[in-house]
Amino acid sequence: MNAKLQWLRNNMSSLDLQGLILTNPDNIRYLTNLEAEGIFLLTRKENIFITDGRYIEQVHRTLTLFDEIIVYDAHDVAKDDYENFFLFCENVGFEEYDISYAKYKEYIRKFKIHNFVETDHMIEKQRMIKDEEEVGNIQKACEITDNCFSYLLSYIKPGMTEKEIANEIEEYYRQRADGLSFETIVASGENTSQPHAVPTNRKIQTKDIITIDMGCKVNGYCSDMTRTIFVGEVPEEVKPVYDLVLKNQLQTQKQYKDGANTRLLTKMVENDFKLHGYSLIHGLGHGVGMQIHEEPYVSYHSDTQLRENMIVTNEPGIYILGKFGVRIEDTVQITKFGCINLTKSEKNYIII
Amino acid sequence: MNAKLQWLRNNMSSLDLQGLILTNPDNIRYLTNLEAEGIFLLTRKENIFITDGRYIEQVHRTLTLFDEIIVYDAHDVAKDDYENFFLFCENVGFEEYDISYAKYKEYIRKFKIHNFVETDHMIEKQRMIKDEEEVGNIQKACEITDNCFSYLLSYIKPGMTEKEIANEIEEYYRQRADGLSFETIVASGENTSQPHAVPTNRKIQTKDIITIDMGCKVNGYCSDMTRTIFVGEVPEEVKPVYDLVLKNQLQTQKQYKDGANTRLLTKMVENDFKLHGYSLIHGLGHGVGMQIHEEPYVSYHSDTQLRENMIVTNEPGIYILGKFGVRIEDTVQITKFGCINLTKSEKNYIII
Repeated sequence: MNAKLQWLRNNMSSLDLQGLILTNPDNIRYLTNLEAEGIFLLTRKENIFITDGRYIEQVHRTLTLFDEIIVYDAHDVAKDDYENFFLFCENVGFEEYDISYAKYKEYIRKFKIHNFVETDHMIEKQRMIKDEEEVGNIQKACEITDNCFSYLLSYIKPGMTEKEIANEIEEYYRQRADGLSFETIVASGENTSQPHAVPTNRKIQTKDIITIDMGCKVNGYCSDMTRTIFVGEVPEEVKPVYDLVLKNQLQTQKQYKDGANTRLLTKMVENDFKLHGYSLIHGLGHGVGMQIHEEPYVSYHSDTQLRENMIVTNEPGIYILGKFGVRIEDTVQITKFGCINLTKSEKNYIII
Repeated sequence: MNAKLQWLRNNMSSLDLQGLILTNPDNIRYLTNLEAEGIFLLTRKENIFITDGRYIEQVHRTLTLFDEIIVYDAHDVAKDDYENFFLFCENVGFEEYDISYAKYKEYIRKFKIHNFVETDHMIEKQRMIKDEEEVGNIQKACEITDNCFSYLLSYIKPGMTEKEIANEIEEYYRQRADGLSFETIVASGENTSQPHAVPTNRKIQTKDIITIDMGCKVNGYCSDMTRTIFVGEVPEEVKPVYDLVLKNQLQTQKQYKDGANTRLLTKMVENDFKLHGYSLIHGLGHGVGMQIHEEPYVSYHSDTQLRENMIVTNEPGIYILGKFGVRIEDTVQITKFGCINLTKSEKNYIII
């Protein structure tokens, strides 16, 4: 059994869980390296992965004896088998944020579960703290992202459409990484006022402002970076907004460290924005890992502490309806006494 | 209000639902054209979409007065508002296959819901029957897929990797459609024995068998087609398997029509495969629409009737562990007296 499964077994006994049903595919992959569809059961003595015929061969290729995981084809699991998996288990845990209400009801019946117990993001919380291998993958994904951005600065020319630029980014990542970690945002001109803009056929013009939000995956781990750049010159009306966003991004960078409170961090940026007549309409950051958005969230709604080896984004943004928007975002690693920017691209005015 | 929302309102009253909370993004898009994150409430008198600041501008761009949908930023919805949405509603429906157990509990509390009622795929069932516009989108996606396949036949050469071919398909779709409807499968040689193979760096060789499973999106609607082709010659050991799969694919094509039973259709293929010593390890087909896999499922586990203007796949396949596999798949439209293949690529031996 690997270290992550051993941690889980220990955690289960400290929570008085004799059994556990895992359904979240990322959590299953985190614990087992398996990418196949299926559910992962931890019974009193066994670790069981139930999948179907489409994945059996692939699963057997991934697992070794050391994994101590028994694989079943759902086709071959009888009604009685389901009822026996958790025999004599008083409490069986489940992932209440992942399982649908319909599955919840089905599993209680099918597995004859006595006490079906919510586990409150138990594995997601463990996933927040990255081990060396995970940090390495994210570092690599961030490095490729920095390189891609630097390539873009010479690639982007007036007359190109947002879509063309987004496609070029995708192509770049496809050749050097395991593809995108999310749909690239390339927004230009007034389109930058939408934080989640989808690339359009709008052509880049002189004096445009362009927001690029991009990231790739390496071995299943994500990177995330945003830069707002300028064509030819920085428009006068944008300057104070850009400066304010950058000032807050740099201040946050100084404050990100083990022990810092996510709500307080957000509140400080919100206050400074308000003081200047703007507001922070999205969170200040989010965890980055196997998912592009994962715990911990750095927002007003999340009252938690940053911890060493969490990897989160630092991404203040200001959006002025129908005019323009500015966002500057890095992926950073939290350390005992500060943080390390894993994306390192220039943040002062970039004029192409 | 559009026709789909009107249908939903009528359906609600026939089910004695005074309110409804929709959380499935595809269902929300189907009813409203909105692609933003959020939840859609149907209260006694109003249609309400609750989203957040990131999407407000985009939502307002999509909606017109005619839609009769009120939009809220979740930030501005107070505790009291939530409690008032379903005031005097005896029964409020929800999507039990979509909502997590945690959200289910949260909504009952937050909306002060009296009776929270399961709606049993009410909207998915309606989505099974495609209207003219939906059929048109899928037709277009299938046509592009046929063209892409015919392009591939001259493009693929020994020495190329599976990944290169998959990338070329993606590039083709990106230029002519709205991207992929699912991750393309290009499997060669022994990799074809995995129904869900992920493209690898394996190079195409002479005498290879290649399975290509591909599809694109047009206006949010998918296509899906698989062909198994040969490099240089058809290996003798593959011929009987290919012939058996094709025979069953053509027989299914004859039997797909309004009124045909999905379980019986599957059983007939299963029986014929068994008779020859093989088995059908995945379903015979699935609905295609906004999602690449949706209802109705044509499988042994699904006991339902095909209906006019359903769009489903017809995809028998045989996989011989560690050796090779053959799958032939079309997307077809069900009619009163038969079916129309929307993907029309050659199905006899294709040798490149």
